[in-house]
Amino acid sequence: MKQQVIIIGAGLVGPLLATLLAQNGMDVRVFERNSDLRKRPARPGKSVNITLATRGMAVLDHVGIGEQIRTLSMPVYGRVIHARDGRTEYQPYGNRRECLYSISRHTLAGCMADMAEANGIPLSFQRRCVGLDTAIPSVRLEGESGVETLSADVLIGADGAHSAVRHHMMAQARINYSQYYADHANKEIMMSADAVREAHFRTDALHIWPRGEFMLIAFPNLDGSFTCTLHLPYEGTPSYAGMKTVHDVQRLFERYLPDICPYIPNAAEQFFAHPEIPMVTVRCDPWVLEGRVALIGDAAHAIWPSYGQGANCGFEDCASLARLLTTSSSLKEGLTQYQFERLSNANAIADLSIQHFEEIRDQVGDPLFLKRKKLERLLNQLYPEQFIPLYARVSFTQMSYVEAIRQEKEQRRLVDALMQRSDPEVAISELRGMNP
Amino acid sequence: MKQQVIIIGAGLVGPLLATLLAQNGMDVRVFERNSDLRKRPARPGKSVNITLATRGMAVLDHVGIGEQIRTLSMPVYGRVIHARDGRTEYQPYGNRRECLYSISRHTLAGCMADMAEANGIPLSFQRRCVGLDTAIPSVRLEGESGVETLSADVLIGADGAHSAVRHHMMAQARINYSQYYADHANKEIMMSADAVREAHFRTDALHIWPRGEFMLIAFPNLDGSFTCTLHLPYEGTPSYAGMKTVHDVQRLFERYLPDICPYIPNAAEQFFAHPEIPMVTVRCDPWVLEGRVALIGDAAHAIWPSYGQGANCGFEDCASLARLLTTSSSLKEGLTQYQFERLSNANAIADLSIQHFEEIRDQVGDPLFLKRKKLERLLNQLYPEQFIPLYARVSFTQMSYVEAIRQEKEQRRLVDALMQRSDPEVAISELRGMNP
Repeated sequence: MKQQVIIIGAGLVGPLLATLLAQNGMDVRVFERNSDLRKRPARPGKSVNITLATRGMAVLDHVGIGEQIRTLSMPVYGRVIHARDGRTEYQPYGNRRECLYSISRHTLAGCMADMAEANGIPLSFQRRCVGLDTAIPSVRLEGESGVETLSADVLIGADGAHSAVRHHMMAQARINYSQYYADHANKEIMMSADAVREAHFRTDALHIWPRGEFMLIAFPNLDGSFTCTLHLPYEGTPSYAGMKTVHDVQRLFERYLPDICPYIPNAAEQFFAHPEIPMVTVRCDPWVLEGRVALIGDAAHAIWPSYGQGANCGFEDCASLARLLTTSSSLKEGLTQYQFERLSNANAIADLSIQHFEEIRDQVGDPLFLKRKKLERLLNQLYPEQFIPLYARVSFTQMSYVEAIRQEKEQRRLVDALMQRSDPEVAISELRGMNP
Repeated sequence: MKQQVIIIGAGLVGPLLATLLAQNGMDVRVFERNSDLRKRPARPGKSVNITLATRGMAVLDHVGIGEQIRTLSMPVYGRVIHARDGRTEYQPYGNRRECLYSISRHTLAGCMADMAEANGIPLSFQRRCVGLDTAIPSVRLEGESGVETLSADVLIGADGAHSAVRHHMMAQARINYSQYYADHANKEIMMSADAVREAHFRTDALHIWPRGEFMLIAFPNLDGSFTCTLHLPYEGTPSYAGMKTVHDVQRLFERYLPDICPYIPNAAEQFFAHPEIPMVTVRCDPWVLEGRVALIGDAAHAIWPSYGQGANCGFEDCASLARLLTTSSSLKEGLTQYQFERLSNANAIADLSIQHFEEIRDQVGDPLFLKRKKLERLLNQLYPEQFIPLYARVSFTQMSYVEAIRQEKEQRRLVDALMQRSDPEVAISELRGMNP
C-alpha cells in the first residue's frame, strides 16, 4: 500500500514537496488555509519578488518545471548600485554571466499549484489546521462544513513563518524556538514599465539604492515594470515613525533617491496604501516529532529576505526530504536524516541573511568594504575555479550553506592579508601560478 | 477616578502585584485559569519548593506578609554536599548565618491569594484568557457561563511560563521571543519526616548529591519531610530513557545515592507515578505594548530553577512595577521604565541560572572548581564587606542581578590571579590591609 502523506500549506514549498513525493510513489494530499491564489490577483503592496538561484532552479529542473519558470522570470546578471549623487556602478554577479531569476511569488505559487494538480495531487483550500496529534499522526482541519480529523503516515507542516503546525507541535513537545524581528520593515512601491523605460534603467539587473540607514531595492518584472522594496527602520531618522504626511515621503524620495524619484510620481500614495512587511528570523529545533511529523520551508526556518534565499532553501529542503523519505529504511529514519542534513544549513543561511543585510547597507559608506569586494572580484577573475566569493557560492553553486561558510573563512584569510598590503593588485599578480 | 488594572494569573506574582497596586490606590481585579488552589491539595510530584532569598523576602516584608511566610518556611543556612562514597561536606551560604527560606509553592500561593482578598481584591477562578486587544486594552475571558470582554487602563499578564497573554500579544505585535529547554528534567521524590530523622540529615540545609550527569537536591519542609528533586537527562546513561523498570530506578539509587537510598524505599514507585518537569528559559522583548499591556514574572522571563531565583525575580518585578506605576507621570511612562529596569536583569538571572546548573554538577569532579570556591569563601571571611561571592550577592543582597555580575567579573580577576599561585592562602594573607 502507498504511503499516505498530508501536507499543510499550498504556498511554494507544499506543492513542490507534494509533487516530488507523488513522483516517488506516495499518496499525497495538500491542505491550505487561504483560498486558491490562482483565482485572485496579488494583493497590492504584497506582490513579493522571489529570486531563484542555482540551487533553487536545480530542484525545479529536477521536478520538471524549470524551463517553464525561466520563461516566466526575468534573469538578472548583477546589481546596479545607485549613489546619492546619481552615479551608478554595475556589479556583475560573476565573470561568467551567472544570473538569478526574478519572479513574482504569486506567479510562482500558481505554477506550483498547477504542477501539483497535474501530478494528481488534490489541493484543498480554505482548510485551516486547528490541532494535531503528533503520535498518530492526525490533523484537525477546519473548513466551511466544520472540523474533520485526518490521519496519515506522515504529516508535514509547510505552512510558512507563522506555521499553525509548528504552533501545535510546540504545545505537545519540548521544542527550542526563537523569533527575532529586524528593526526594519519592507514596503513595496511599484514603478511602471513606461517609467522604467523612460528612466533608462537596465532590466537585466537588480537595482540598489544603499543609504546607510535605509535602502531601496528594485526587482525587474516580466512586464517591464519594477517592484521596488523600501527598507526603512521603524524608528529614527528616516523611519516609518517619521513618515506622517505625503510631504514627508516626497521629501525622503527627493533627498535620498533623486534619480528614481521623478519616475514614481505616486510614491507617497503607494507608501500609505501598502502595508509594512516585517522581517523575522524563526529558528526551531527539533523539526521532527515522533518520526511522523515534520516542518519544512519557512515553517521550520523563516529568514530575512536580504540574501534572496528563502525559497531556494525551502526548495532544497523538499529535495532532501523527498530523497531521504524514499531511500531510507523507514519513514522515521528518513525524517531524522532530513533534519540532520538541513537544520544546520537553515541556521547558516539565517545568519548569512542577517549579515548580508548589513553588508548591503555598508556599500554606501565603507571604503574598506568596497576595496575588499573589488579584491574578491579580481581574485575570482584570476582564479575562477578556486576563489569564489561567498555570495557566488550561495547563489550560483549547490554547495551546502555550511560548506560555503567554511570555505569563505579560508578565503577571507587570503583577502585579509591582501588588505594589509599597500599594493594588493601587485600582490595578487605575484600569486599567479600559486594555488591561492 | 481610580485607575483600573486587570491581572491575568493568580499564582505567586499576580496576587502580590495586585496587593501592591491596591495598596497604592488602584482598582485591581485578578483572573485565573485554574480552580482555586486553596480548595485542593498540591498534586503529588508537582509540589515544587520555592527558596525565598533576601530580595524576595524584602518585597514580602514591604507588603506586610514577610513574618507570616517566615513562620511557614524552613530556613536553610547552607548546602550539604553528599559524595558518592557517603562523605558529606557542609558549605554554609555565608559567614553570618545568611539563610534562604524554603516553602512549598502551594502554601506560598495560598498565602498570596488570602493576602490579595484581605486587601479587597476580587480573585476570579476558572476564567481563561482567550484573546486580547492591546490597543484598548481589553481581554476576552472564557468561563463556565461563556466568554466576556473586559477592559481596563492597564492589563498585566502574570500567567506563567506558558502565558496566554504573551501568546496573544505575539499575534498582534513584533515581539522577539525565545524558549530554550534543558536536556534535563526534574522529578519529585518525597522523603518522609520519619526517614529524614532516621537518616540523621540536618533539616537546616539543602542537600545535594552531585553526580556529574545527574543530581539529587533535597529541600526540607516544615513538617520535617524532604522534597527531593531528581535532575536527570532525557537521553544517555543514566537518563529517563534508560529507566524502563522498577529495577532500573532501584539500581540508579543504589549505585549513585547509597546514603539516601535506604530511606526512600518507594523511590521507584514515586519515579513512575510522578511527571517529568521540564526546565525552560523563556525570553521576550518587549514586555510592554501600547503603554497599556505588560508581562511580569515567568510570563516575561521563565528561568531554570537551579538558582532558586524564579519567584524572587518575579517579586522584584512586582515591587518595580508598582513603584513605577505610582511615581511616573503616566501609566505608559511607568510601564516603559519598568521594562527598562527589569528586562536586562531578567536576562542576567536567566544566564546565571543556566551557568549555576552546570556549576552544581561540576562540584563532583573538578578540583580546580572546588579550589576556587574555597578561595572565595576564605576571601569573604577576611573581607566580608568587600569580597562577596556571586551566589551570596544574588541570594543575600538586593543588588541588581546585572550589577552582581559586573562586580563578580572584577572579583574573578583577583581569584584567577590567586589560582595561579602555588600558595594562594599565603597570597591572601599578604593581601591583608590591601583593598582587594
